[in-house]
Amino acid sequence: MTGIPEPNFDLLFNPKSIALIGGSNNIGKWGAIIFLNILLGGYPGRLYPVNPKEEKILGHKAYGRVTQISDPVDLAIIAIPAHLTRESVQDCIRKGVRMAVVITSDFSETGEEGARLEKELTAMARAAGLRLVGPNTMGIFSASASLTALMPPVRPKKGSVSLVSQSGNIGTQMLGWGEKFAVGFSKYVSGGNEGDLRSEDYLGFLGQDPETRVILLYIEGLDDGREFFEKAKKITPHKPIIAFKGGRTPAGSRAARSHSGAMAGVREIYEAAFRQAGILWASTPEEMLEWGAALSSLPPLRGNRVAILTRGGGWGVITADACNELGLEVPPLDGSIIRSLDRLLPSYWSRGNPVDMVATISTESYMECLELLISWNQVDGVISLSGHAGPLAQIIPDVKERAEAILPPEQIENIAQKVSTGRTQIYQRVCELVRKYQKPIFAVGPNAEGASGPADSAVAQFRSPEGAAKATGALYQYYHYRKAIGMEEEKKRNNGIME
Amino acid sequence: MTGIPEPNFDLLFNPKSIALIGGSNNIGKWGAIIFLNILLGGYPGRLYPVNPKEEKILGHKAYGRVTQISDPVDLAIIAIPAHLTRESVQDCIRKGVRMAVVITSDFSETGEEGARLEKELTAMARAAGLRLVGPNTMGIFSASASLTALMPPVRPKKGSVSLVSQSGNIGTQMLGWGEKFAVGFSKYVSGGNEGDLRSEDYLGFLGQDPETRVILLYIEGLDDGREFFEKAKKITPHKPIIAFKGGRTPAGSRAARSHSGAMAGVREIYEAAFRQAGILWASTPEEMLEWGAALSSLPPLRGNRVAILTRGGGWGVITADACNELGLEVPPLDGSIIRSLDRLLPSYWSRGNPVDMVATISTESYMECLELLISWNQVDGVISLSGHAGPLAQIIPDVKERAEAILPPEQIENIAQKVSTGRTQIYQRVCELVRKYQKPIFAVGPNAEGASGPADSAVAQFRSPEGAAKATGALYQYYHYRKAIGMEEEKKRNNGIME
Repeated sequence: MTGIPEPNFDLLFNPKSIALIGGSNNIGKWGAIIFLNILLGGYPGRLYPVNPKEEKILGHKAYGRVTQISDPVDLAIIAIPAHLTRESVQDCIRKGVRMAVVITSDFSETGEEGARLEKELTAMARAAGLRLVGPNTMGIFSASASLTALMPPVRPKKGSVSLVSQSGNIGTQMLGWGEKFAVGFSKYVSGGNEGDLRSEDYLGFLGQDPETRVILLYIEGLDDGREFFEKAKKITPHKPIIAFKGGRTPAGSRAARSHSGAMAGVREIYEAAFRQAGILWASTPEEMLEWGAALSSLPPLRGNRVAILTRGGGWGVITADACNELGLEVPPLDGSIIRSLDRLLPSYWSRGNPVDMVATISTESYMECLELLISWNQVDGVISLSGHAGPLAQIIPDVKERAEAILPPEQIENIAQKVSTGRTQIYQRVCELVRKYQKPIFAVGPNAEGASGPADSAVAQFRSPEGAAKATGALYQYYHYRKAIGMEEEKKRNNGIME
Repeated sequence: MTGIPEPNFDLLFNPKSIALIGGSNNIGKWGAIIFLNILLGGYPGRLYPVNPKEEKILGHKAYGRVTQISDPVDLAIIAIPAHLTRESVQDCIRKGVRMAVVITSDFSETGEEGARLEKELTAMARAAGLRLVGPNTMGIFSASASLTALMPPVRPKKGSVSLVSQSGNIGTQMLGWGEKFAVGFSKYVSGGNEGDLRSEDYLGFLGQDPETRVILLYIEGLDDGREFFEKAKKITPHKPIIAFKGGRTPAGSRAARSHSGAMAGVREIYEAAFRQAGILWASTPEEMLEWGAALSSLPPLRGNRVAILTRGGGWGVITADACNELGLEVPPLDGSIIRSLDRLLPSYWSRGNPVDMVATISTESYMECLELLISWNQVDGVISLSGHAGPLAQIIPDVKERAEAILPPEQIENIAQKVSTGRTQIYQRVCELVRKYQKPIFAVGPNAEGASGPADSAVAQFRSPEGAAKATGALYQYYHYRKAIGMEEEKKRNNGIME
C-alpha cells in the first residue's frame, strides 16, 4: 500500500511522555495493572493517566481526555472497552500522537463486527499519521526507556535480545523467563491482531536497531509472507533471527485461527522458507531463549567439532549422543592433548572425548582441563558439564537439626561458603576463557540463574546437556549459513563477536 | 549360569543393620560423605562403621573388621580403595553377609587389571552366597528403610516410582529432581559396572515389588538382552516401564564403552525391542521423570481424544500442535458442551478446542470449565494450562520500595495471599476431579513444586505444555499396548488406577 506513514519506532520504544487512556485505581482492571507495571518498572518519563471520572490515578493527576494534556504525548496506551476506542483514537489524532498501543480486545479475533471496527480504526489512524500496535496486544517493553507497559507483571532482565510475538501470553512469559534462562531483553512487542503494524514491520526495525543483537519471533501466521522473508534475508547475514511457529498441525492452526485470526500455513512450507532466509527454527519457546542467550553472548562456532568435559560419565554419553544426532562431531583425542590431560587426571581416566574427570573434584583441575580443551586446535567449541548433583550445602538447610547434631557449625558454614564461591569462580573463569580463545564454551550449570557475572562479561549458561547441545547446533547452523553466503570472511576481518 | 545364589533384595532395601567398610571422619572422603548421607537421611537401623584406624566415626563406635561386629550384618557398603576390597569381601563372607554395595571404583571400567579383580570378587562372593551391587556404584536408596546410602547428598522425595540406572550421575541426579518434578521414589539402584547383579536382576525384583508402581531405567548396554526383554515383557502388562537409552550414536556409544564398559547397541534395534516389550522410550531423563509422575498418579487415558483448557491463546496453539504431532486428537466441541461453556465465558469466546478462557480470570469459572471438559464424553483426558505468567505477588518482593510508595501495605499482603491460596486450591480441586471422573488431567502449573497436596491425593503436574502433551502421549501409548495384549478388560473389572 502507498501513502501509509512510516512508523516512528523511536516514539514507541523511547517515549518521553505517555498517555494511559483508561488508567484506573481499581487494581482488578487492566488500566490499573498496566499503570502499576509501568510505575514498578521505574519508567522515568512523564505519565498522563486519562480517565474522565477520577481526579488522580495512583498518585498521578488524571485527565478527562488526551486533548486536555498540554505537554506533547509521544505514545498513547489505550486500555478501554472496544466501543470507546474510536473516540480515543480521534482524540489521539487531534493531539498529534503518532504511535499508540491498543491493549483493548474484542476486535477481529472475535468476529466480523470486531474486524470492521479494527479496519476502521486502522484506516482512520493511518490517514492521520498515527500508527497502531495491536489491538488485542499485551503491550511492549523497552530496556532503554525502562518501560514495562505490559498486562502481566513481568520484570524483564535487560540485555540485547529483542522479541516480537503474535501471542501475548507466550511472548510475555518468555520475557519473564529472562532470569531463569539468563537472557537479557532490549525490546519486546506483543503484536496482537496486527490490525495495523505487523511482524514484518517490527522485524525491519529490529534489523536496523543497534541495541538488538538477536531477534526472536513467535509467529502464528504472516500477512505478507514474501515481504517478511525478503526482510529477514537482509537481516540474517548480520544478525541472527530465531523463530518458532505456532499452528504447525491441523489442531494447532484451527486454534491459531480463532486466537489471533492468523491463517496458519503448512509446516513444511514455513520450515523451508525459514531455512532459505537463514532463520533458525526452534521447537519450543524455551529453546528460542537458550539460543538467544547463546547467540547474543558467545563467539561463533567456526566448525562442527566439539569437545565435552564432564564430571559424570553418563552425562557425557547423553551429550555425545545429542551432538551426534544434531550433526556435530565429537572427535577422539590425539596424543598431544592426551599427554597434557594425563598430568591432570587420575591414571585410569578414559582418554576419550567426552573427557570424564572421573572422581577429580578440584576446581583448579577442572579449569585447567577446560582451558586445554578450548585451546585445542582440533575442536571449535566445548560443552562443559560442571556436574548436576546438588552439593551437600544445598541439602543441609533441610536437615539442619540432624546436621547440627553431627557436624560442628563452622564446618557446616564452611561447606556452604566453599560451594557458593566455587560456583561463581567457575562461571567467571568460563567467561574469561571464552574471551581469551574467542571460541564458545557451552556451560551447563546446576543453576543457570544462580551464578551470574557482570553483564559485560556474562556468557550463556544452559539448563541441561541436551539444551547445550542444541544451542551448539544452532550456533553452528548460523555460522554455516553465513559462510555459505560469503559473510564469514568479512567477519574475520572485523574480528568482533557479532557485527 | 547355574548355582548362583538368589539375591535377597529384602536385605538390600530393608536392612536392619549396615556395616560401612571405609567409614571415615574426613568429610573430603566418600566414606564420610556416604555415612553422613545415611545419617542425614534418618536411617533408623543399626550402623557399624568399619575402620581399623579410628575409635569412633561421626559419633558411632568403629570396628577394625566386619568380623568383629557381634550383631548380624544385613548389608555391607564397601568404600575403600580397590586393592583392599578382596580382603573386605572375604571378611563379609566370613561374617555371613549376603548383600553388599561396592562403591569402590577402578575395576573393569579402567582396564584389564580392574576387570580381572572384578571377576575374581564376583566369583568369590557368589560361591559363598554373597551378591554384589556394583562395583563403581554411587549407591542405593530405599524409601521404606529411610536409607540414602549414596555418594551425592540428595534427599529423595518418597513415593512409588523406582529407578535403576547404569549411570550413577544420571540416576542420582534424577533422584534429586524428585521435588522439582513431583516424583516420589520407592527404590533406587545405581548399578555401576554390574560385575555381579545386573539391570535384568533389579528389573525382575521391581516387577514383583508391591511398593513400586512404575519402573524407570537408564540403560547404556545390556549383558543379556534376551533375558532383559523376556523379563520386561512379563512386567509391562501390569506395571509400566519407562526407559532411556544412552549410547545411541557412534560418539555416545564410544563414551558409554569407556564409562561403564557397556557395549552400546544400535539405536534402531533397541528401540524396536523396547517397543515390542511394551517399554516406553523416553528421550531425556527429565521426560522419564514426568512420565513416571504421570503413570504413578493418574488414571489411564482410555483413548487419544484430548481437550485443552487455556488462559492464553498462544499456549493453546502450542499444545494443540504438540498433541497432533504425537498422534493425539483435539476434537472440535459439540453443541451441547458449547452451550454449557457459553454460560461461563465471555460472549466472544472462540467456541473451539483448545478452550481459551480469554480474559476470564476467576478461579471458579476456571474450575467449572475444567469440570465440564473432563466430564465430557467426547474426550479421554484434559490438558489444563492454568497460565504461566507470574502473578503480581511474585514480583512485588523485587520492587518492594516502589510498590510500597504506590499501594497500601494491606493491599500488597492481600494480593500475595490471594495468589498463593488460589494456586493451592486449584491444585487440590484438580486432584478431586481426577478422582471423581477417573480420567487424567495433565495440569501445567506455574511452579509444579510450589503446590502440592497431601501425598495420597497428589497428581502429576507438568512444567511445560509440551511436557504435558508428551506425558499424555505416553499414557495413551501404555493404554494402547495393554489393550492390544488384552489387558484392558481385566483392568476395568478391577477398577483400580493400576494393578
